Amino acid sequence: SFSRGGGRSTCSFPMMQTQALAAFLVLAIGSASAFAPVLAPSGVLSKAKSPISPAAGTNVLAAARLPLRAGRSMSASAASSLQMKDTTKIAVGLVGTGVVGGELFKQFDATKAKLLKDDGVELVVAAVATVRDGKPWMLCDAKGLDVKAYEAAVKDDSKGEDSDLKKMAEFCKGAAPNAAMLDCTAAEAVSDMYLTWLEMGVHVCTPNKKVGSGDLKRYKACKAAMEKTGAQWGYETTVGAGLPIIGTLKTDLLATGDVPKKIEGIFSGTLSYIFNTYKPGMAFSEVIEDAKNKGFTEPDPRDDLSGTDVQRKVVIVARECGLDVEMKDVPVDSLVPAALRDWTPPEGAKVADAFINEMKAFDAEKEKQIKAAMDKDMCLRYVGVVDLEAKKASVTLAEYPNTHPFAGTQWADNIVAFNTERYVPQPLVVQGPGAGAAVTAAGVYADVIRIAKSC
Amino acid sequence: SFSRGGGRSTCSFPMMQTQALAAFLVLAIGSASAFAPVLAPSGVLSKAKSPISPAAGTNVLAAARLPLRAGRSMSASAASSLQMKDTTKIAVGLVGTGVVGGELFKQFDATKAKLLKDDGVELVVAAVATVRDGKPWMLCDAKGLDVKAYEAAVKDDSKGEDSDLKKMAEFCKGAAPNAAMLDCTAAEAVSDMYLTWLEMGVHVCTPNKKVGSGDLKRYKACKAAMEKTGAQWGYETTVGAGLPIIGTLKTDLLATGDVPKKIEGIFSGTLSYIFNTYKPGMAFSEVIEDAKNKGFTEPDPRDDLSGTDVQRKVVIVARECGLDVEMKDVPVDSLVPAALRDWTPPEGAKVADAFINEMKAFDAEKEKQIKAAMDKDMCLRYVGVVDLEAKKASVTLAEYPNTHPFAGTQWADNIVAFNTERYVPQPLVVQGPGAGAAVTAAGVYADVIRIAKSC
Repeated sequence: SFSRGGGRSTCSFPMMQTQALAAFLVLAIGSASAFAPVLAPSGVLSKAKSPISPAAGTNVLAAARLPLRAGRSMSASAASSLQMKDTTKIAVGLVGTGVVGGELFKQFDATKAKLLKDDGVELVVAAVATVRDGKPWMLCDAKGLDVKAYEAAVKDDSKGEDSDLKKMAEFCKGAAPNAAMLDCTAAEAVSDMYLTWLEMGVHVCTPNKKVGSGDLKRYKACKAAMEKTGAQWGYETTVGAGLPIIGTLKTDLLATGDVPKKIEGIFSGTLSYIFNTYKPGMAFSEVIEDAKNKGFTEPDPRDDLSGTDVQRKVVIVARECGLDVEMKDVPVDSLVPAALRDWTPPEGAKVADAFINEMKAFDAEKEKQIKAAMDKDMCLRYVGVVDLEAKKASVTLAEYPNTHPFAGTQWADNIVAFNTERYVPQPLVVQGPGAGAAVTAAGVYADVIRIAKSC
Repeated sequence: SFSRGGGRSTCSFPMMQTQALAAFLVLAIGSASAFAPVLAPSGVLSKAKSPISPAAGTNVLAAARLPLRAGRSMSASAASSLQMKDTTKIAVGLVGTGVVGGELFKQFDATKAKLLKDDGVELVVAAVATVRDGKPWMLCDAKGLDVKAYEAAVKDDSKGEDSDLKKMAEFCKGAAPNAAMLDCTAAEAVSDMYLTWLEMGVHVCTPNKKVGSGDLKRYKACKAAMEKTGAQWGYETTVGAGLPIIGTLKTDLLATGDVPKKIEGIFSGTLSYIFNTYKPGMAFSEVIEDAKNKGFTEPDPRDDLSGTDVQRKVVIVARECGLDVEMKDVPVDSLVPAALRDWTPPEGAKVADAFINEMKAFDAEKEKQIKAAMDKDMCLRYVGVVDLEAKKASVTLAEYPNTHPFAGTQWADNIVAFNTERYVPQPLVVQGPGAGAAVTAAGVYADVIRIAKSC
C-alpha cells in the first residue's frame, strides 16, 4: 500500500474526513489555544513523490512481521552478552502543527539527540500532517523530519501529498519497530481515528479531550483495542496540561492499590484567573474583560464560562477511576446567564466585547455572591469534583475557606487534590500552570518517552 | 551456586555485613519510621532446606543466558500474530520487613492479581530478608511468597537460611526474566550492595537515601552500571515519599528539555509540622514536644532538627539536575543550638524528654525570630533549595510571605516547587504527606511497576 522510489501517492482522501480535517488548525486544545495565536503554514497543496526509500520499504516489510514491542528485543537478542543497554526506536506522526504541535516539533528538534544518549530512545518524526492552502496535507519521510525540512516542504509544491491519517499511521509503523500518532488538534475527525490506530498497534498521544470525554462506547472500544494489541494511549495533557495528574492517579495511586475517595480541582486556567482576581468591589464583567485582554479566554468567552471544558476533564478523571460516566451525567454550574446562552452578538460586533457588555447586567448578582463568601472568610472557586464514594461527578462554583489550598491558587494555576485512603490526613496535591503551549507540548513529549521506554 | 532439592545452603555470610545487617530493623527511612513502631519478626535462625525446585533451577540457567529485558520479548516472539498483549514477569527480593517493607509486602498481596490483569505485570516475591533472632536471615521461594507463608516460615526453625544479599539477588534473577531488589532498610551494608546488584542487571528500588546522597563516586559507579547493564534504580520515595517528585523532574521536565532554575521545598514532615504549628506566644520547645507526642520525631529529636535528612534530599534532587554535589557542599541551618550538638542526656533520662527540657533555654531566641517574621506578614519555613542558576544548594530556615504556597502547608505536608523555563509565571508544585508507611511503600511499589513495564 506504500508507494516507493519514484512512485506517486495515489490514495484518495474520504470526503467526510477532508471537510473535518480542513478545520485542523482550529486548535482549541483546552485553554491552551487561548494563550497564543494559531500559526498556519503557508504553501500550496500538490501530489508529490513519496519519500520512502527502497531501504525503508524493506524495513516496512520486516517490521510488519514482528509482534508489537519486539523492536527493542530484536537488537537485545542479537547481543552476545548481558552487558548492554539497548535502544528503542519510535517513529511518530505529528498531526497538527499549530500552537501545541508546532512547539512539540521544536522540542523534538532541540532534544532528540540528548534523548537518545540519556534515555536510549531514538525518536524519528516520520510524518507530519497539517492543512496547506486549505486542504489536509501530509509529509512523510522515514529518515525523519525536522522543523526546517518541514517548513521548506510546506512551501514547495512538489513535496508531500494529500493527508490520509490511516496511511500516515501505516507509514510510521513501517518506519520503526514502534510507532505513535500525536494528535495535536481538537478535530473530531482525528479523534475518530484513535480506534483504528490502536487496533493497528500504533500508540496515540494527545492533549485532545474528545475521545477521553466523548462517547463512552468509542472510549471503551479504544481501551479494548489497547488491551488486544498492547498499543498505549497517552493522555496526560488532557487534564492540567503538563501537570502530572493522570500518571499520578493511574500508576502511583490506582495501580498500587490506593483507593481514591474524592478528587477535586480547579481545572480551567481561565476560570482560575477569573476567581483568583475577582474580589468584592470589582465588576465581574470587568474581570472577564481583564482575562480576555490577557489572552486567557476563547474567542467566545462563553466557551470558558459554560464549564464544558472542565466537564470534559472531570469525565476523563472519573473514567480513570472506573466510573462509566458520559458528559450528560456530570451536572455543570454554567457561569453564562441563561438569557445569554443562545444569544448572538449584533452584526459586525466582536463576540467577546459584545458578550462582556451584556454581562454587565449580571454584575450585581455576582457581587452578592462573592460578598457572601468573603463575609464568611471564604472565596469562590470553580471546581470539578469526582466523588468516588457517592459515584458522582459535578462541576460547581463553590465556596472554600481562605485557609484551603484552593484559596491559595495564583494567576491561572490549575490545582488537583487527591483524597485517598492512603494520603491522610492531607491530600496529595498537584498545582501549577495547567495550560500553555510549552508545558502542554512537553507533556505530550513525556507521554511519548514513557511509551517508548515501555516498548 | 544454588542448592537444590534437598540440598542445604552453604554460603558463608561475611562478618562485616552480618554486623551491619543485624541493624536491619533500625529502619530510619527518612521520617517514615517516626510514624509507627518497627515490627520485628519473631523466630529462631537456622539452616534450612532451600526452597528452589529443580524446575526453578532450570529457569536459573536458562535466564542467565538471556540478555537483560529479553524476558518479555521471548514470549512476544513466540506469538503468531501482532494481536497480543504480553506479560512481564518480575521477581522481587524484599530486604527489610519493618514499617515500610512490611506494608509493601501487604500491598503486593492485596494487589498482585489485579496488577497482572490490568497492567500485564506478574509480580513474584521470590525472596525476603529480615533479621531473625538477631541474625540476618532470608527466605527464598521461586514460586513466590505471600505474607502468610513468610510469617509462618519466620517461626519455623527448619525454614530459610542465613541471609546473603548477593545470593538473594542471584536467586531473584533466576526466578524470572526480570529481577529487582527492594531495599526497605536504612542500613549502610544494604546500600553497599546496589552497585553489585546493578552490575548483575538486577534493578533496585528503595526509599533508602544513603546511596543517592552518599559518596559521589559510589553514586556515579551505580549510574555507570545502569548505563552498562540497563538495570534501573527507582528512588522516587527518597524525596517526598509517595509524592511524584523525582519522576516529574526526570521524565516530565528534564527528559523533555525543560530547564529547572530553582527547585525548593519543605522536605521534612517533622519540620513542616513544627513550623506549621509554631506561632508567636508559643514556646518552641513545647512545639517540639507536641511533635514528639504525635510520633513525628525520631527517638532523638536532633536527628530531625539537625537538618541532615533534608540535606540528603537536597543532594538527591541536585544530582538529578546534574550538579555533582556531596553532603559537605550543602550548608545547613541546624535548629540544634551549638551547645546541644554534642550534649548527652543525663544517665537514665530519655533523650527526647531531656533534650526538649534543654531547649527551653532557647525559646526566647526562637520567639524573637518568629515574631520578626509575623510582623512582616511572613512565616518561618524550613526549606531545601537547589539553585540551578547559581549551581548551589542549601538548607535554611527562611521567611516566606503569608501568600506564598509554602505558607499554606498544613499538618506534616511536604511541598516542592519546580521553577523552570517552561512553568511560568507560576511554578509546578507538588504537595502532600511526604512520609508514612502506606504512601512510602506505595511509592516503592510504583517504582517497581514502572520498571516492570519498561522491561
